[in-house]
Amino acid sequence: MNAFRRAGLTLGRIPAGPRGAITDVPGVRVGHCTLCEGEGERAIRTGITAIVPPGDPYAAPCAAGVFVLHGHGKAVGLWQVQDVGELETPILLTNTLAVYVCAEALLTWTLTRHPKARSINPVVLECNDGRLSAIELRPVRLEHALRALEAAGEEVAEGCVGAGTGMIAFGYKSGIGTASRVVGPFTLGVLALPNMGRPEDFVPPSPAPPQGVGTGVAAPSPSSEGGGSLIVVLATDAPLLPGQLGRLCRRAALGAARTGAPADTGSGDFFLAFSTALRFPRDAERVSTELIPDRSRLLGGLYRAAAEATQEAIYSALLAATPLAGREGTSPPVFRVNR
Amino acid sequence: MNAFRRAGLTLGRIPAGPRGAITDVPGVRVGHCTLCEGEGERAIRTGITAIVPPGDPYAAPCAAGVFVLHGHGKAVGLWQVQDVGELETPILLTNTLAVYVCAEALLTWTLTRHPKARSINPVVLECNDGRLSAIELRPVRLEHALRALEAAGEEVAEGCVGAGTGMIAFGYKSGIGTASRVVGPFTLGVLALPNMGRPEDFVPPSPAPPQGVGTGVAAPSPSSEGGGSLIVVLATDAPLLPGQLGRLCRRAALGAARTGAPADTGSGDFFLAFSTALRFPRDAERVSTELIPDRSRLLGGLYRAAAEATQEAIYSALLAATPLAGREGTSPPVFRVNR
Amino acid sequence: MNAFRRAGLTLGRIPAGPRGAITDVPGVRVGHCTLCEGEGERAIRTGITAIVPPGDPYAAPCAAGVFVLHGHGKAVGLWQVQDVGELETPILLTNTLAVYVCAEALLTWTLTRHPKARSINPVVLECNDGRLSAIELRPVRLEHALRALEAAGEEVAEGCVGAGTGMIAFGYKSGIGTASRVVGPFTLGVLALPNMGRPEDFVPPSPAPPQGVGTGVAAPSPSSEGGGSLIVVLATDAPLLPGQLGRLCRRAALGAARTGAPADTGSGDFFLAFSTALRFPRDAERVSTELIPDRSRLLGGLYRAAAEATQEAIYSALLAATPLAGREGTSPPVFRVNR
Amino acid sequence: MNAFRRAGLTLGRIPAGPRGAITDVPGVRVGHCTLCEGEGERAIRTGITAIVPPGDPYAAPCAAGVFVLHGHGKAVGLWQVQDVGELETPILLTNTLAVYVCAEALLTWTLTRHPKARSINPVVLECNDGRLSAIELRPVRLEHALRALEAAGEEVAEGCVGAGTGMIAFGYKSGIGTASRVVGPFTLGVLALPNMGRPEDFVPPSPAPPQGVGTGVAAPSPSSEGGGSLIVVLATDAPLLPGQLGRLCRRAALGAARTGAPADTGSGDFFLAFSTALRFPRDAERVSTELIPDRSRLLGGLYRAAAEATQEAIYSALLAATPLAGREGTSPPVFRVNR
Repeated sequence: MNAFRRAGLTLGRIPAGPRGAITDVPGVRVGHCTLCEGEGERAIRTGITAIVPPGDPYAAPCAAGVFVLHGHGKAVGLWQVQDVGELETPILLTNTLAVYVCAEALLTWTLTRHPKARSINPVVLECNDGRLSAIELRPVRLEHALRALEAAGEEVAEGCVGAGTGMIAFGYKSGIGTASRVVGPFTLGVLALPNMGRPEDFVPPSPAPPQGVGTGVAAPSPSSEGGGSLIVVLATDAPLLPGQLGRLCRRAALGAARTGAPADTGSGDFFLAFSTALRFPRDAERVSTELIPDRSRLLGGLYRAAAEATQEAIYSALLAATPLAGREGTSPPVFRVNR
Repeated sequence: MNAFRRAGLTLGRIPAGPRGAITDVPGVRVGHCTLCEGEGERAIRTGITAIVPPGDPYAAPCAAGVFVLHGHGKAVGLWQVQDVGELETPILLTNTLAVYVCAEALLTWTLTRHPKARSINPVVLECNDGRLSAIELRPVRLEHALRALEAAGEEVAEGCVGAGTGMIAFGYKSGIGTASRVVGPFTLGVLALPNMGRPEDFVPPSPAPPQGVGTGVAAPSPSSEGGGSLIVVLATDAPLLPGQLGRLCRRAALGAARTGAPADTGSGDFFLAFSTALRFPRDAERVSTELIPDRSRLLGGLYRAAAEATQEAIYSALLAATPLAGREGTSPPVFRVNR
Repeated sequence: MNAFRRAGLTLGRIPAGPRGAITDVPGVRVGHCTLCEGEGERAIRTGITAIVPPGDPYAAPCAAGVFVLHGHGKAVGLWQVQDVGELETPILLTNTLAVYVCAEALLTWTLTRHPKARSINPVVLECNDGRLSAIELRPVRLEHALRALEAAGEEVAEGCVGAGTGMIAFGYKSGIGTASRVVGPFTLGVLALPNMGRPEDFVPPSPAPPQGVGTGVAAPSPSSEGGGSLIVVLATDAPLLPGQLGRLCRRAALGAARTGAPADTGSGDFFLAFSTALRFPRDAERVSTELIPDRSRLLGGLYRAAAEATQEAIYSALLAATPLAGREGTSPPVFRVNR
Repeated sequence: MNAFRRAGLTLGRIPAGPRGAITDVPGVRVGHCTLCEGEGERAIRTGITAIVPPGDPYAAPCAAGVFVLHGHGKAVGLWQVQDVGELETPILLTNTLAVYVCAEALLTWTLTRHPKARSINPVVLECNDGRLSAIELRPVRLEHALRALEAAGEEVAEGCVGAGTGMIAFGYKSGIGTASRVVGPFTLGVLALPNMGRPEDFVPPSPAPPQGVGTGVAAPSPSSEGGGSLIVVLATDAPLLPGQLGRLCRRAALGAARTGAPADTGSGDFFLAFSTALRFPRDAERVSTELIPDRSRLLGGLYRAAAEATQEAIYSALLAATPLAGREGTSPPVFRVNR
C-alpha cells in the first residue's frame, strides 16, 4: 500500500492494484540509492531511482511514448523513445546535473549484458534538488546508479529516498510516490517525482480541507533558477502502441494538473510510458500482437486510470516524505491530512 | 461580469479584467448566431460563435499557437497556425459537421475585404452537439456564419448561444463561457466551449460542495460516438511568440483538467491562442517588436493566468446555461452553486 | 505504366509494380473530375482527384500517418489523422479554396453509406492553381467532388486531370503523377500533386541533361502569394503502424527534395500515408495483427521505396502534362526528356 | 575555402562566405580534439568537435530550433532546445557512446564561468564510428572535450578530425565538412558530420559523373546496428525565431537528401540551428528585436541557403577526408572528383 492509501485516502473510481505501486505491473521493479551526507553549504541530499522493465529491455525493447508538458529539463534519451517508440534500457531518475553519469551507468549496465552492443539509448530523467543539496558538487558516481539498478525489487519505498531525497513540491517536502490502477485485464502503474509548485498552487486531496492541513504551510520558497519540475513514469501490461502510450502520458498530465502542478517557465515536466506487453525483439522481422483500437472502452479506461494514478502518486510522494534538513539547514514542512 | 463572477465565485489569485471576458483584451470582439428550431427527431439546437481579432487579421496576421490535448476533432486551419505561427482570419466555433460551411464563410468574409486574396487559411473549431441537435441535417448555412461575424461586439453572451446552444458537459447543460485575467500591463482572455466529461468526472468549483449541487445531477449519458470535446480560445495583448502561445495553450489544458475534463478517446480538445500585439503585416520584410523572454516573471504570470481563466470560463459556461430541451426531448439538468 | 516509365526512364533499384501506379496497392482506386471552362480572366482550370482506400474506410479506418515539410497549406482533417492515426474517408485533392466544399462532399459520401454517423473526419489536400485558374470564383461544387469519387478505378490518368489540371512545377506545366514499388511481399504506391519550385530549383531525372531539356524552360514565374505546394499521398499493403507511416512520409519528402522541391515559405508540402492492411474496425475492442518492427530490413526497404516512388511520381506528373492555356492565356511549357 | 570549393566545385546560386565555413557567421568558432590510437581490434579512431557561439551562451542564450529526420540517435539536450527555443552552451559532436562524458564537460565548462549555475542544458550530438573505432572501450574523457572547446577558432579543419575521425558515408571515408552562404545582410553557416548511406544511395556532386568517380567505390558495408546517422549544425546572424530556425533545419534536410542521405531505420539524423543575433539574456524581462516575417523574401533566401550549404558541407566532408585505417584494418576508400 502506498502512503496515500495508508493515510486512508482514496481517489477516483478505478480500483488500485494490491501494492498501490508501479510494481503491480508484473515484472516491473524499482530500486533506490540514496546519498545523504554532510551539512551546511556542502550538504548532499540526492540519489538515484531505477525503474526496471521485465525481461531484457535491450534484447526486446518495450513500446514506449512520451509527453512533455514543459521542456525545460535535461532528460536523456527521450527523442529516440518518442520517435522510434521503443525503450531499450531501464529508466533512471536523479538530479539535474547527474543525468549524464547515470546515462554512463546504463551504458555499463547494458554492455555488461550485451558486450557487442554498439548503440544504446539510456533514458534518464531529472528534477533539480539544488535547494536542499549541493548539486554543483556533482556527488553522484556511476557506482551509485548501478547500486540503484541492483537494488530493484517489487517493494517501492516512497518519500525521501533515491531521486526523491532532496525534492520539494508546493513548498512541502516531497519525494518518490507511486500508485496503480486495474482496468479490466490490465494493470497500469505510476511512479512520480514531484518537485514543482508554490504553496498557493496546491490542490490538496479531498476530503482534506485546504485550510489547516499538514504540519504547517511553507512560506513561498524564493523561485530559484532551475527550480520546479515533475517526472512521471507509467508502466502497463496492456499492449499499447507507441502513439497510444504518448497519449496516455497526456492524461497523466491531467492528473498532475489536479494536484495544482503549474508547469512553470523553468519546469521540466516529463511523462514517459512503456508497455511490458508490446515488445519489439531486436532482429525480429515480424511481431504478432493484439492491439487495442483507439475507440475501445478499454483504452478510455486506461486513459482515466493514468490521470487518477498520477494524481494519487503525487499526493503519495508528499504524504510519504519525512522531515529532512538540507543545505544550510533548509527544512521544508511535511504535508499530512487530518482525519 | 461573466456568470461565474455573478454567482459570487472567485478562483485563483490573479485579478480578472473588467468584463471577465475575452473581450477585455482590447479590440477582440465576439458574436453569435443561434439556430434553435423544431422539435423531436429533427430538432435543431446549434449555432456559430465568432471571435474576431482587432484590426485586419488578413492584412496583418496575429502571432498564434496551438495545443491539442486529444486530436479526435475536425478543426479547420490549425496546421498552418501551428507551423507558420499566424492567424489570418477570425475564428469560428460551431458543430462537428458545420465546420466546412463556416470555413466557406470565412473565405467569403476575407474575399469581400481582400478581393485579390488567393490563399486564405480559415480557422474553425467544433464540438459535437448531436445529442441535442439533428446534426446530420447539416442546417448551418453560410449566411448564419456571416451573421455571427457581423454580430461581433464587446459584450459576450454566455450559455446556450451560438456554438454553445447544444452543448453538454459533465452531464449538465453547457454552452459558451468566458473569463479574463490581468497580468502586469497585459490582459489575457479565454472563451471556452465545453462539451466533455461524464457526471462523475466533474470537479465543481469550491466552495460549492460536490454533493447536492445543481438542480440535479444528470444520469451518465450513454457515451455516443463523437461525443465529447472541448474548445478553448485564448487572446492576449502581450507580444508572445508563436512558440510561447503554444505553450500558453498547454497551461489552458491544466485549467481544463482542474474542472475534471477527461480528454476521452473520442474527444477533440483543441486550444488556440493568439496575440493582438505581435502582428506580421503581409509583405513586411522586417518587424520591430519587444519580446518577453521565457524566463521572465511576466511569462510565468501569463501561464498561470491561462490556467485560471480557462478553469473559470468552463465553470462559467455551465453556470450561464439555461434549461433547453433538444432532440427527442433530451433536457440535461443545469448546474448551479448553492450559496 | 506511368508517363515516367513510358518515357523509358528508370530510377532507383527497387522494382516498380505492374501499373507503376498507386493502384498497384490492391484495392486502392483513383478518380478524377476535371473543370476546364472559359478563357481570359475567368478561365477555370481546376478539378478534384479522389483516392479511395479498399473496403469501407468509415467502418474500418486505415492506419495512417502524416508529415508536413512546410505547413502553409489548407489541408482538412490532418490533425485527427496525425493524432489518432486513422483515415476514415477517401482522400480528395483539389485547389486551395475548394477544400471545404470537397470536405462537404465527403460528409455526404459517408452519410449516404452510414446514415447514423455523427462524427466524420474528411481528409482534403490542396495546391493553389490560381495562376492558371480563376480560383477566387470558387467554381468547384459538391457534385464535382462526388463525381471524382464515383469515377474511381484502377487506371490512374496522369497530367492535366483532376486536381492536377491547373498545376505548375519548376516553371513547367504539372499535374497528377503516380508511381509504385514492390518490397518483398508488399507494395507501396504514391500519387503526387506537384505545384512547387522555380525553374532554377529543378533537378531533372538523369540521364536527361540539365541543359536543353524540355520544349523550353519557363521564365521564372513571379512568386505570387500562395504559390507553391506539394501534395504526396502514399498507400501500402504493409501493416505499418501510424508512427511508422508518419516516418514513411518523411522519406517521401527526401524523394521530393531530389527533384529540387524547395519547400518555399508560402508552400504547403503535405505528405500522408495509409495502410490498407492495418485496419481498426469501429467498435472492435481488440485487433490481432502482425507488425513490422522498426529495425526490420523490410521497413528499411519500404522507407527507400517511399523516396524513390515519390521522386518518380513527381517526374511523371511533369512528363504526363500536356500544353494548357489558362487564365489570361498563361501557358507554361511542358517538360520532356530527349532520348 | 572548404574542400568542396578547393576542388573547383560550386553548387546553387547563392554566394558563399569568404571561408566557405560556419565560422563565416561572425563570432562562431570551431575546435577539434582527435583521438587516433592503437591498431586492430582496439583501434581508437574518434574525437570531439566543438561549435562555440559568440559571447556567453549561458548568460545570453541563442534562439535555436531543431528538426529530426529520423530519431534513432542519442542527442543530449535537444528537447529543451526544441521546446524552450534556446541554446545555452556550446555544441559538442562526438561518437554515440561518448555523448554523456561530453555533456559532463559542458557542465564543467559552464560551471567554471558561472559557478552559481544550478541548471545547465548541455547539447551534444553524435554519430556511430563503431566500424572504424573500438567505441565500446569508451576512450573519450572529459579533458578531451574541454580540449576541443579550448581549441575553438575561426579556421575549420575538415575531414578526419574531431568527431569526424572515424566516420563513413556512402561507403567512403567521411569526416567533418562545412559550408556557408550569404543572403542579403546575413550569413548562414553549416557544419556537417555525415555518417550515413550505402554506396548505391550516393548522388555525387555534378559535374562529377556518377560512374568512375573517386578512387574506387566501396563495396556495400554490411549494415550494422547503430550504423548510419547525420548531424548538421546551422548558425546564422539573422534574427530568426525558434520556430523559424526549426523550419530552417527542415530545409537543411532537403540539402542532405540531395546527396542521397537515406534516413535509414537505424539512423539518427539531427539538425540544429541557432541564431547569434536573437539572444535572450538570462533575467531580462523584455528583449527588443527586429524579426523577419515568414513571408519575407529574406527568409525564403535563408531557407534555400540552408539546403545549399548543407548539401555542400556533406560533399566537403567526403572531399576533405583522407585515407585512414581503423579497427581490424578497415580502410574505406576516399571520394574524389575527376576534373
